[in-house]
Amino acid sequence: MTGPAEHAPAIALTTDIGEGFGMWTIADDDALLDLVTSANIACGFHAGDPDIMRRTCARAARNGVAIGAQVSYRDLAGFGRRYVAVQPDTLTNDLIYQIGALDGFARIAGTSVTYVRAHGALYNVAATDTAHAAALVEAVAKYDPKLPLLCQVGTETWRLAAEAGLTTIAEAFVDRAYTSGGLLVPRTEANAMVTDPDAAAKRAVQMVFAGELTAITGETIAVQAQSLLVHSDTSGAVEIARATRDALESAGARLVPQA
Amino acid sequence: MTGPAEHAPAIALTTDIGEGFGMWTIADDDALLDLVTSANIACGFHAGDPDIMRRTCARAARNGVAIGAQVSYRDLAGFGRRYVAVQPDTLTNDLIYQIGALDGFARIAGTSVTYVRAHGALYNVAATDTAHAAALVEAVAKYDPKLPLLCQVGTETWRLAAEAGLTTIAEAFVDRAYTSGGLLVPRTEANAMVTDPDAAAKRAVQMVFAGELTAITGETIAVQAQSLLVHSDTSGAVEIARATRDALESAGARLVPQA
Amino acid sequence: MTGPAEHAPAIALTTDIGEGFGMWTIADDDALLDLVTSANIACGFHAGDPDIMRRTCARAARNGVAIGAQVSYRDLAGFGRRYVAVQPDTLTNDLIYQIGALDGFARIAGTSVTYVRAHGALYNVAATDTAHAAALVEAVAKYDPKLPLLCQVGTETWRLAAEAGLTTIAEAFVDRAYTSGGLLVPRTEANAMVTDPDAAAKRAVQMVFAGELTAITGETIAVQAQSLLVHSDTSGAVEIARATRDALESAGARLVPQA
Amino acid sequence: MTGPAEHAPAIALTTDIGEGFGMWTIADDDALLDLVTSANIACGFHAGDPDIMRRTCARAARNGVAIGAQVSYRDLAGFGRRYVAVQPDTLTNDLIYQIGALDGFARIAGTSVTYVRAHGALYNVAATDTAHAAALVEAVAKYDPKLPLLCQVGTETWRLAAEAGLTTIAEAFVDRAYTSGGLLVPRTEANAMVTDPDAAAKRAVQMVFAGELTAITGETIAVQAQSLLVHSDTSGAVEIARATRDALESAGARLVPQA
Repeated sequence: MTGPAEHAPAIALTTDIGEGFGMWTIADDDALLDLVTSANIACGFHAGDPDIMRRTCARAARNGVAIGAQVSYRDLAGFGRRYVAVQPDTLTNDLIYQIGALDGFARIAGTSVTYVRAHGALYNVAATDTAHAAALVEAVAKYDPKLPLLCQVGTETWRLAAEAGLTTIAEAFVDRAYTSGGLLVPRTEANAMVTDPDAAAKRAVQMVFAGELTAITGETIAVQAQSLLVHSDTSGAVEIARATRDALESAGARLVPQA
Repeated sequence: MTGPAEHAPAIALTTDIGEGFGMWTIADDDALLDLVTSANIACGFHAGDPDIMRRTCARAARNGVAIGAQVSYRDLAGFGRRYVAVQPDTLTNDLIYQIGALDGFARIAGTSVTYVRAHGALYNVAATDTAHAAALVEAVAKYDPKLPLLCQVGTETWRLAAEAGLTTIAEAFVDRAYTSGGLLVPRTEANAMVTDPDAAAKRAVQMVFAGELTAITGETIAVQAQSLLVHSDTSGAVEIARATRDALESAGARLVPQA
Repeated sequence: MTGPAEHAPAIALTTDIGEGFGMWTIADDDALLDLVTSANIACGFHAGDPDIMRRTCARAARNGVAIGAQVSYRDLAGFGRRYVAVQPDTLTNDLIYQIGALDGFARIAGTSVTYVRAHGALYNVAATDTAHAAALVEAVAKYDPKLPLLCQVGTETWRLAAEAGLTTIAEAFVDRAYTSGGLLVPRTEANAMVTDPDAAAKRAVQMVFAGELTAITGETIAVQAQSLLVHSDTSGAVEIARATRDALESAGARLVPQA
Repeated sequence: MTGPAEHAPAIALTTDIGEGFGMWTIADDDALLDLVTSANIACGFHAGDPDIMRRTCARAARNGVAIGAQVSYRDLAGFGRRYVAVQPDTLTNDLIYQIGALDGFARIAGTSVTYVRAHGALYNVAATDTAHAAALVEAVAKYDPKLPLLCQVGTETWRLAAEAGLTTIAEAFVDRAYTSGGLLVPRTEANAMVTDPDAAAKRAVQMVFAGELTAITGETIAVQAQSLLVHSDTSGAVEIARATRDALESAGARLVPQA
């Protein structure tokens, strides 16, 4: 017998996590790890320290949450939100270092890093910059070519990852407005963030079941989503994640660690 | 037929390596990697950066040199030569982070981290401090209990590693004077360093073949050595390593990546 | 005519402040800067970054709050709460660096650093360790021998500062329990923290007007206080500061930037 | 009586210095400090640590060498040679922090910071990028509007510094080839560096006495030089500095700490 669950769309729900450092914290990590299916864990270059990485991997493993390496430019003071004109070879090595370090904690927790995602400025830059996208792809390919790379469809990262034979996971954003061209509305613009849990949840359902979204300018655009991100530092992140999870499940989606 | 080589003592010759950072270098790493059989590679907390780690692992692998993780307190400004009163749990995690990061580069080079050694102040502190020795042992045991720990016989590190079921490798120093009690003469004292290549080489042969050494005060002391260290920043390190290697081989020892 | 205010005891009310870093914050700095008379501002080695230092100095200056340099071991990952066995000469230079950096921001705000205070582990270590106390005193003496040093009566810091001809300011703690010997009860023990605003306020009045305090074991001990500290990361710090300020003023004390 | 020295052109000879960190060194600072008239001292963000800053300021002061703050992006791993897309306000504060820190050591040495110069990527970026040039100018203007800014004629830095009422000092390079447009030939191109001491010295004399230089393509171009830089990490830096100094003095120039 084949139940309806097997025909239901599978979707991963993720968040950036483990983004404290030393005495400092930034989000309610424990609550979020009870809601998401995969966790993009900071690796110490923009945030995260070995204590936090150990603890976050352990809790993720206990919860059956997949562990992704959230890799970044070396920029603790700027939280990885600033472009750094690092040489591509050096960038590749900086990223391998981070993946390896996190992988050690993941293995201690009985699992392993199961995907990679770029953080902040690196995510944005690699979307259009061929050299840094290639450096990111090269890091994954060298570390383990079977590791999927989480990125947006249509970016340089996506294109080069596919070219290199990596598995890609299509990412979409629950808490961010999109332009009619399918890009994110910059955080500096009005209404760039979707902070209402119900609105975010509805967008998630629309993306997963219809493959489309209403852009900030009103048009309906196509959005491919295998993994939905809730930023952990968005105001009300826990509520957004809960509403999104509930709405997706009510609509019949299967929430999975990796789509 | 059993040739003489099989009865010859097996000994590893090691050095601390990869101890630059960014623009800075400190030793002639390439020359040393042509002479030693195993390399204690810095992991970024006292020295070393991802570029250096990648390059050093690659060259070590090409040369058939074993890769050891030279782990340290988090102290780039002090080159890991200063005791830091870090909590044992945090120390364990700091060390796991370093081993994992290096292991990634080792695996990319087609090998893996095959042993762990503490650097600088951590090496010295863990020799007598139970809490930090235990934290070091715990890091290795958690990361991979099959990884040997390179340390001196008679230290807390040695005792706790054995207690935890880890393999220990007995380390001795080619370029350092010993007290009659078998401890290292502190660097701040006169004649603490052995910088004459021939003198160092003779000591190496004496330790490996006789299991003993002449202490700074003239007594003959017992020294157990499965692995001999030449500090890469000792004056004339390359010449010391070469003379030591030549003398050991002439005397019939087999130089091996790990004894 | 000489009003009562002139006979009233003068007391400074201080807090540790500016202890965020990059994206991270740790306390309600703005609320605290409206209540205290002097601010111990982090200088970037345990916490604090140039943006925070600039902003905190500016707000302190606007509020007529005195600016103190809260200097620390170089230990961002440990928030300066871990002893680092740094060479005394290096420690002195690390502290001069911090004072100079903060002084630049203080002068831009139209004032200057008017005192120095050690943070965290350095404060505690220098209370009993002659070498690090001397290094702290030397930093102040070299930077500007007219700068007072804020420290506890009876410590090595106090003794060496006085010996070196520095001005000392006697510090006492509003939110910490004392032993019968006049030392702080370690944070790890029960009841070490005084988190009830009214209890803290009463202790403040007792110290300022009676020069004494009830120790955790019940005895009355002498406490000399020219400056009262509320830790900014104590739970309810803002309420403790407000209650303390109100109680002191009601009792007739004059709250001054520096006693 | 007015001797010829008074009519002789005055020129400063400078070098980047104090660019080690912790255990690492990069140049023969002592030899260079015996030859130059002003020193661009690293302030800890791309290189330099408090020990080095203290020692370098002391030696500069003893030698009558002027102290300049060589300020940088926050980038120890990249030696300040990588553009960082830092917010202009944050950049301004990062630079003020560095100037203030160095100024403390300069004052301890009995002098003070007497000019500011951008290092590496910041120098190059601010030459054409209005936002970062403005951030640099703002840092100097806020710290002390009487401090001159050392930069190249024709850059955004020069233009905005002048606009803000700062004193500018025209910098030229002894050890770098120029394009016909008066720009530096990028280090990555052939013949970008002038490493022959005699050739460098002749160029220096040509620039100072004739106000012109032969470009890499053969044309004679105008070059305005009040301060001549020898990079401390150029191969043969000490010999280049000595030959330049000797040639300038033989030709009748007066070497001064600041032109």
